[in-house]
Amino acid sequence: MNARSRFLAAANCLPTDRPPVWLMRQAGRYLPEYRALKTKHDFVTMVRTPELATEVTLQPLQRFALDAAIIFSDILVIPEALGQPYYFREQGGIGMEAPLDRIEKIKALQKDGAADRLAYVYDALRLTRAQLGEDTALLGFCGSPWTLACYMVEGGSSKDFAKIKTLAWTEPKVFADLMETLTDTCAEYLRRQVDAGADAVQIFDSWGAICPAHLYETWSLRWIRGIIDRLGSDVPVILYAKGMCHLIPQLSATGASILSMDWTIDLAEAAALAPAHLSLQGNLDPAVLTSSPETTRAETHRVLESMAGRAGYIFNLGHGMIPSAKIECVEALVDTVVHSSPRA
Amino acid sequence: MNARSRFLAAANCLPTDRPPVWLMRQAGRYLPEYRALKTKHDFVTMVRTPELATEVTLQPLQRFALDAAIIFSDILVIPEALGQPYYFREQGGIGMEAPLDRIEKIKALQKDGAADRLAYVYDALRLTRAQLGEDTALLGFCGSPWTLACYMVEGGSSKDFAKIKTLAWTEPKVFADLMETLTDTCAEYLRRQVDAGADAVQIFDSWGAICPAHLYETWSLRWIRGIIDRLGSDVPVILYAKGMCHLIPQLSATGASILSMDWTIDLAEAAALAPAHLSLQGNLDPAVLTSSPETTRAETHRVLESMAGRAGYIFNLGHGMIPSAKIECVEALVDTVVHSSPRA
Repeated sequence: MNARSRFLAAANCLPTDRPPVWLMRQAGRYLPEYRALKTKHDFVTMVRTPELATEVTLQPLQRFALDAAIIFSDILVIPEALGQPYYFREQGGIGMEAPLDRIEKIKALQKDGAADRLAYVYDALRLTRAQLGEDTALLGFCGSPWTLACYMVEGGSSKDFAKIKTLAWTEPKVFADLMETLTDTCAEYLRRQVDAGADAVQIFDSWGAICPAHLYETWSLRWIRGIIDRLGSDVPVILYAKGMCHLIPQLSATGASILSMDWTIDLAEAAALAPAHLSLQGNLDPAVLTSSPETTRAETHRVLESMAGRAGYIFNLGHGMIPSAKIECVEALVDTVVHSSPRA
Repeated sequence: MNARSRFLAAANCLPTDRPPVWLMRQAGRYLPEYRALKTKHDFVTMVRTPELATEVTLQPLQRFALDAAIIFSDILVIPEALGQPYYFREQGGIGMEAPLDRIEKIKALQKDGAADRLAYVYDALRLTRAQLGEDTALLGFCGSPWTLACYMVEGGSSKDFAKIKTLAWTEPKVFADLMETLTDTCAEYLRRQVDAGADAVQIFDSWGAICPAHLYETWSLRWIRGIIDRLGSDVPVILYAKGMCHLIPQLSATGASILSMDWTIDLAEAAALAPAHLSLQGNLDPAVLTSSPETTRAETHRVLESMAGRAGYIFNLGHGMIPSAKIECVEALVDTVVHSSPRA
């Protein structure tokens, strides 16, 4: 099995020689070569320049025996393509230009041609595929409509998300219009990522857990289902719903092929709740990569053991890599997975 | 039934005429009278001055028909009493003086007499009880040892909590010593709050959800159990474990009498998972209080309905009140609960 066939088998819940492995935010600040490039180009320039995005995407693959590359980009390219640029706040967190604090601003979003304005992402995927070759999986991604709407309405990172929630509660029609715009744009964007060479796509519902459980379907999951419906069943879709991983039946009902688990749920318990055709991904606490190679090996082994005997598991972290992760811990993680046992 | 007997009945899973109601962070910035007092005194002064803490504690009771007052204080008074003061960062969030980044600093914590140095809290409780009378419940609280350790080791609010986790993974003995110190101090602190008039106490495990599920017992719950064991069964203990509410069997095994639920779980499902003797609290998304009185009534009613027919429910929010909450929404919430039906 090569890396790509291993990844695709696990994504389709078929047996593999061992679990495939990739790591959320595997290209990033913990890598010295990324930090070196970052001294020359700012984040948004790297995202917008296919040659740079490709270089960053491939950096972790040159160090570690990963089975998949994920295109270097940001979920906020979609709001930007709709006419609402983003920036990084000095004090940390994301800021959005001109928060959607009035209905007119939501109506003024430039939906027509939005997916076209993201051509630089498709170019980066094509360039990455050319350099990566055919034997390694390549992933695309987008933010969920709900998560994007959170940033767009709040005007960036938020403490209590009161604005987006109040909009959803008190202006359901306006909220639905915004979500339709985002759903259509995300679906088209992911389709074109697949056309440009992505083997699978991940939808990040990073802010799912700010939804009350009984409104999670209405506020977030139904729009994710809309994207997946439009993509069709030939594309494996990974859904990562941070903080909502205990709601497996609801997440599964979106039609996602793979659920990516954070660390707040025991993976064996998650597998017991999941339908047999559903693959799982993730679960290792990324902070373990700041401890020691020994602890990393032990925790990696524990996660692998919890899925022993189940097909359809993709090794990954429970959240993105953190900047203080140690290279030797990442090596210990990948080495432990690579030398692990076959999946039934 | 008066407010206090209603609260205590629900806390003990006994029938009530209707659910008692109080609101996490019910004294705070959403109240104009709080903001007025805050222009004259800083937060730490208000916490440390029994007359001011009492005034703030009673402010929401003068406006709303709440069944319980919770003493105005902060979970970080314990680190401060151990020799590590806290402050508010200009950019938001909490900072701690001299983060415990070396083992010697952990060993240097001044455990002896720490609970004595919190006499101002017991004084505030006695003064509050005197002004509140005997017919309303009065609550004390503390942070969980894990949550306090997070702040103390990270040096304040954190993005990834890599320092405390690495300590727990790589220095288990030092970590356990710190947790013993915190557990002993919390237990003594809560006991003395009860002696000073608290009818029940709440333990806030605000950072429980940063623990991997399989380490939640080792890193947090066992120390909470240590506090509850030492308090004895005569004191109702409420456990609030934000982001970990789906782990009801584990939370229940701490010996807590009441589990306070955030909004990421359906309350009826939580009740189905909970042992019959366990009371539940909470669940309403605090952001609803920024929407409209109509939406607040509907959402409050929905929460009440989900617990219809079950004894042992205390109405509350799923997290603390947010500063932009509207007074008219809080009125709608309390009014809806006050006019709701008896609990079997």
